[in-house]
Amino acid sequence: METNYGLTIEGLMKHRSIRKFTNQQIAGEHRAAILAAAQHASSSSNMQAFSVIRITDKGLRETLMAITGNQSYVLESPEFWVWCADLYRYTLAAGQGTADAGLDGANAEWYTIGAVDTALAAQNAAVAAESLGLGIVYIGGIRNDIRRVGELLKLPQLVVPLFGMCIGYPDQDPVVRPRLSPEAVMHENEYSSEAYHSHIAEYDERHRAYMRERSGGKLESSWSEQMTAKQSQSGRQIGGYLKNQGFRLDD
Amino acid sequence: METNYGLTIEGLMKHRSIRKFTNQQIAGEHRAAILAAAQHASSSSNMQAFSVIRITDKGLRETLMAITGNQSYVLESPEFWVWCADLYRYTLAAGQGTADAGLDGANAEWYTIGAVDTALAAQNAAVAAESLGLGIVYIGGIRNDIRRVGELLKLPQLVVPLFGMCIGYPDQDPVVRPRLSPEAVMHENEYSSEAYHSHIAEYDERHRAYMRERSGGKLESSWSEQMTAKQSQSGRQIGGYLKNQGFRLDD
Repeated sequence: METNYGLTIEGLMKHRSIRKFTNQQIAGEHRAAILAAAQHASSSSNMQAFSVIRITDKGLRETLMAITGNQSYVLESPEFWVWCADLYRYTLAAGQGTADAGLDGANAEWYTIGAVDTALAAQNAAVAAESLGLGIVYIGGIRNDIRRVGELLKLPQLVVPLFGMCIGYPDQDPVVRPRLSPEAVMHENEYSSEAYHSHIAEYDERHRAYMRERSGGKLESSWSEQMTAKQSQSGRQIGGYLKNQGFRLDD
Repeated sequence: METNYGLTIEGLMKHRSIRKFTNQQIAGEHRAAILAAAQHASSSSNMQAFSVIRITDKGLRETLMAITGNQSYVLESPEFWVWCADLYRYTLAAGQGTADAGLDGANAEWYTIGAVDTALAAQNAAVAAESLGLGIVYIGGIRNDIRRVGELLKLPQLVVPLFGMCIGYPDQDPVVRPRLSPEAVMHENEYSSEAYHSHIAEYDERHRAYMRERSGGKLESSWSEQMTAKQSQSGRQIGGYLKNQGFRLDD
């Protein structure tokens, strides 16, 4: 982007996931500022339907790392936070003392509120952290065994671990990954997929160039190839756990 | 927050929803910067599982406003964007030309990826917009009749409208809403609800003070009271529509 829109947008445009961190710890006041920024994100009817579990126990980090398919930064990052959709606290407040009543209402709408509230807060945390010179990476891999993660973190009904987040000072400087052209993502008044084939083909070429640069010429997979490879992997199944946690998603 | 953490965090901490906008339009290059910032948010395996439908048609705005329970700013804001979880484009890319194959994989994990990717992108858009002096408000009310919204916007299978967003120059200056104490939201190594009753009681008092200030002394509802009122309202049901769009959430 050539125009100068200010430091905030400049920061957003420079995001890349960081998977290698220095040993430097994050100051307590910075940690507090990151959490405060997260809490100030928009929230559906102010339900604040999320919780963060900060993982400081090394043994627990090792177990979580194994669940994510041995992503070493889950163990090594100065901070590892598990972001959870949380309708339990809301239900406690709404029920004036008991959470049981909440189970009646816990349908797909509630799960959506929890997932969206949690992600809005987490993204504010990511933006705040990066503005402090920190790097982050989201860890969807905790959903590889979501039931086990829920047990380890002693999550009650109506709480679901959605993703982890490693935070720390970057010890690498990866290239920013290019994205689909804006025309492939924004529609006007109605959804239109007419130009998708050409948008995807154009992005595939930019993605190849990015992969070549990132790998020093060794890799050059297109976006389509990566998406095809991803789809052929055995997928995660979290529906049973969501039901176990009290969500009736057919409603 | 007394310490100076820089403009970005300062901006995040000042967020409040804006529901009244001036007539000033948003420059095209600013609109582009907001979308670009959204696209640079983290995305699960780079699936970029979201689309934005920009609503410029006035009749369509009026219909959407009615669906949201007549929130006038849906009609009046310079920009109104509908943010959709989109697994359709990904499926097209992964399937090398056909989206049908994707329906096999569309389970609760896929819906979660779509909801999280969409919310991360939208929050970057919100942060970018506010850094430009604009104000925003999320509109969950489009889920009041999610099926109708999906029909109006001609959404294909695997695309779900999650929320709207009004964007424009603020014509009001509301107080920032206080949030739960950080101790009520962050846990260490395991979930703990032991102190929830005292945290909620403490927040209820702060919330009363906020409501008094906001209303000029006319209102003073606590958080618990607002959450209780919300829970007693007839809830939205979106599970049937999600199934209609191809998501099998029991998986």
